[in-house]
Amino acid sequence: MDAELVTIGTELLLGFTLDTNSAFLGQRLGGIGVRLTRRSTVPDELEPIRSAIVEGLDRTRLVIVSGGLGPTHDDVTKRVVGELFQVPLEFSAAIWDELVGRFARLGRVLSERNRCQAEVPRGAHVLPNPRGTAPGLWLTGEAGEAILLPGVPGEFRGLVDEQVVPRLRERSRNRVVRSMVIRTTGIAESALADRLASIEPQLAPLTLASLPGLAGVDLRLTAWDLLPEEAQPLLERQAERIRTVTGDHAYGADEDDLAAVFLAECRRAGVRVGVAESCTGGMLGERITEIPGSSEVFAGGVIAYANSVKEELGVPARILDQYGAVSQEAALEMARALQRRFSVDLAIAITGVAGPGGGSEAKPVGLVWFGFADRKNAVARRVVFPGSRHDIRARACQFALWQAWLRVRAGEGETERRS
Amino acid sequence: MDAELVTIGTELLLGFTLDTNSAFLGQRLGGIGVRLTRRSTVPDELEPIRSAIVEGLDRTRLVIVSGGLGPTHDDVTKRVVGELFQVPLEFSAAIWDELVGRFARLGRVLSERNRCQAEVPRGAHVLPNPRGTAPGLWLTGEAGEAILLPGVPGEFRGLVDEQVVPRLRERSRNRVVRSMVIRTTGIAESALADRLASIEPQLAPLTLASLPGLAGVDLRLTAWDLLPEEAQPLLERQAERIRTVTGDHAYGADEDDLAAVFLAECRRAGVRVGVAESCTGGMLGERITEIPGSSEVFAGGVIAYANSVKEELGVPARILDQYGAVSQEAALEMARALQRRFSVDLAIAITGVAGPGGGSEAKPVGLVWFGFADRKNAVARRVVFPGSRHDIRARACQFALWQAWLRVRAGEGETERRS
Repeated sequence: MDAELVTIGTELLLGFTLDTNSAFLGQRLGGIGVRLTRRSTVPDELEPIRSAIVEGLDRTRLVIVSGGLGPTHDDVTKRVVGELFQVPLEFSAAIWDELVGRFARLGRVLSERNRCQAEVPRGAHVLPNPRGTAPGLWLTGEAGEAILLPGVPGEFRGLVDEQVVPRLRERSRNRVVRSMVIRTTGIAESALADRLASIEPQLAPLTLASLPGLAGVDLRLTAWDLLPEEAQPLLERQAERIRTVTGDHAYGADEDDLAAVFLAECRRAGVRVGVAESCTGGMLGERITEIPGSSEVFAGGVIAYANSVKEELGVPARILDQYGAVSQEAALEMARALQRRFSVDLAIAITGVAGPGGGSEAKPVGLVWFGFADRKNAVARRVVFPGSRHDIRARACQFALWQAWLRVRAGEGETERRS
Repeated sequence: MDAELVTIGTELLLGFTLDTNSAFLGQRLGGIGVRLTRRSTVPDELEPIRSAIVEGLDRTRLVIVSGGLGPTHDDVTKRVVGELFQVPLEFSAAIWDELVGRFARLGRVLSERNRCQAEVPRGAHVLPNPRGTAPGLWLTGEAGEAILLPGVPGEFRGLVDEQVVPRLRERSRNRVVRSMVIRTTGIAESALADRLASIEPQLAPLTLASLPGLAGVDLRLTAWDLLPEEAQPLLERQAERIRTVTGDHAYGADEDDLAAVFLAECRRAGVRVGVAESCTGGMLGERITEIPGSSEVFAGGVIAYANSVKEELGVPARILDQYGAVSQEAALEMARALQRRFSVDLAIAITGVAGPGGGSEAKPVGLVWFGFADRKNAVARRVVFPGSRHDIRARACQFALWQAWLRVRAGEGETERRS
């Protein structure tokens, strides 16, 4: 079953309000196997509203309308839809009395302005809205079906969950659209596509979408129009197949945060962690401590932004003089010094050129050196990241977490306790 | 001038991705007097993309398209638009060479898969995209105008600001919708509304909207449908009137970040800053170092998450034992120790209960103590913040920056050098 959404609101088009209802509806409809095939946003004006609804009904016979039911003069939706379904608006005493009573219980008096909210296109099914003054309306006729919902997010969501989804679910033969995300990092979208090319034809009937972001590339597998008991095992089997080709790059599923995945691994391995951050200035610590319970694993760190702080931490001045603050040697010494100072099992150091200034031929903007030190050894990694200052810093933190996670998973940093 | 936006993405319709490009574009177009009259979101499929673009061109002759330019097989936008404008796709060696060169400088190799990103509909104007691999394209023909932009938010925004807005502005010698935001912090929305009540009637014809967020409450003044030379002085005059009642709470305008405002004040005053962070775990350092050039002012800090690190920093164990890590005494000692250790002019310390666990009757989740130490004195502040772990941490950083800014502005922390 397909449906379209028409969202009414001049303030949405002006960009002053972010439309979150649309994403919410898409998820809810997907969950019951209804495919949202188009969303349109139009201003609070008669003609654009009419044409968007007419076009949607032509294409799918089912249009959900968000907004345009308020008490102000610019809300013309009910009138437009009444005309489309060739029914007059009628004042409903039942709706009005309920509204007046509800307001009275709150010690409030309804404005005459609200009377129009009790007007209903003849024959429309009324969807009670306990959270606001405008009820939802469900019209069925020659033109198809139109479901009118108030645009206020809390009211919209309440009506979708309590009125719309249960009614549509009955019709959709229980089929669902269900997705699973495999989160990857440390590999470019094109390189990932090359690896996936061989297995992609075998994923049918599932579809695969690739979504690059600062955390890496998310791979979304989607099952369309299947029964839940078919969709779930299929998703799991194919996700496993994808993981075999993405290898160490796949760190989690769905909403997993690499910082949380890393912390869980540290907890399992009994590894205590500290950070020494230069160009990221605290961002790695922030990522780690955003996870509740991180104090079990995370000791803390030093934001070694100025060279004086790097020296205070224990990086020899001659290293900074000879190789510079952004160098393999500085990264290694930062990690070693932090490991000793805080006596942690794994110290992660980051030093780089985040830009926009400060780059050179030898050390361009985006160059970042990483150091990882455990109680015995230290290793360094070098990457040049693309993007803005923010992007470079965010990518550097994600890379650091990824490498640290791989090290802990492989048993590095546990040598002391094992021996 | 009217325009429509067509956003391409099955992910958006499924509700897995929130569409922020649309609001951004609406704001930017409003700023140059171009009215966005419709937004449509369609899946990554040929027919829906084609019909949405055709309908938009029929209505407004100017359609901006977001998304559908990536290297994966589901990106068919260029093909569709080429057909609409009746021009073939041609491989551009110039674009390809630039791309290969850019990747080479980052030490990376482009996949053959990216070759399609160098294909251009004949006659299209190419909009360089330094942030990604797909350039923007601007087609003009019988059908009207189509502007194709990549959907990745950073790339989309960059191209809108650098390429689209300047070109469209030249054409719209028109009336504008123009806004100015006065950013406030450290005051509740309702308290702010009380202060504004007396002046609000005098703001007409401008409208005032109050937008609460983690950084504080933004007040947006909007001039509708005025000439730029009328709108700007009116906005400035009324913004000034608002600032007289918001006082110390108003820290900036429009997109101003309090971290940048604070750093500018430090630079002016010659104050060098360090941080000691417990519950914020590096977030304050991250906020400060996100600003380019922060190294002139910011020395660094210590993420004193575990008590052992607080002691290592120089907080006496008896303070932690007697008063606890979240206390006035601990906050003061953290600030004093950091100030001495890094020899900065102003040390900012944060220690609190970010939750979700760890709260008690005496020290509830949300309780945060702040310490501010200069070369002579130290003061503490106590606040209980509402919200989630993330909200509490973000609000704590904003509060710390606000208080630190007020101190530097008032000349605190400069006593040493002045004497």
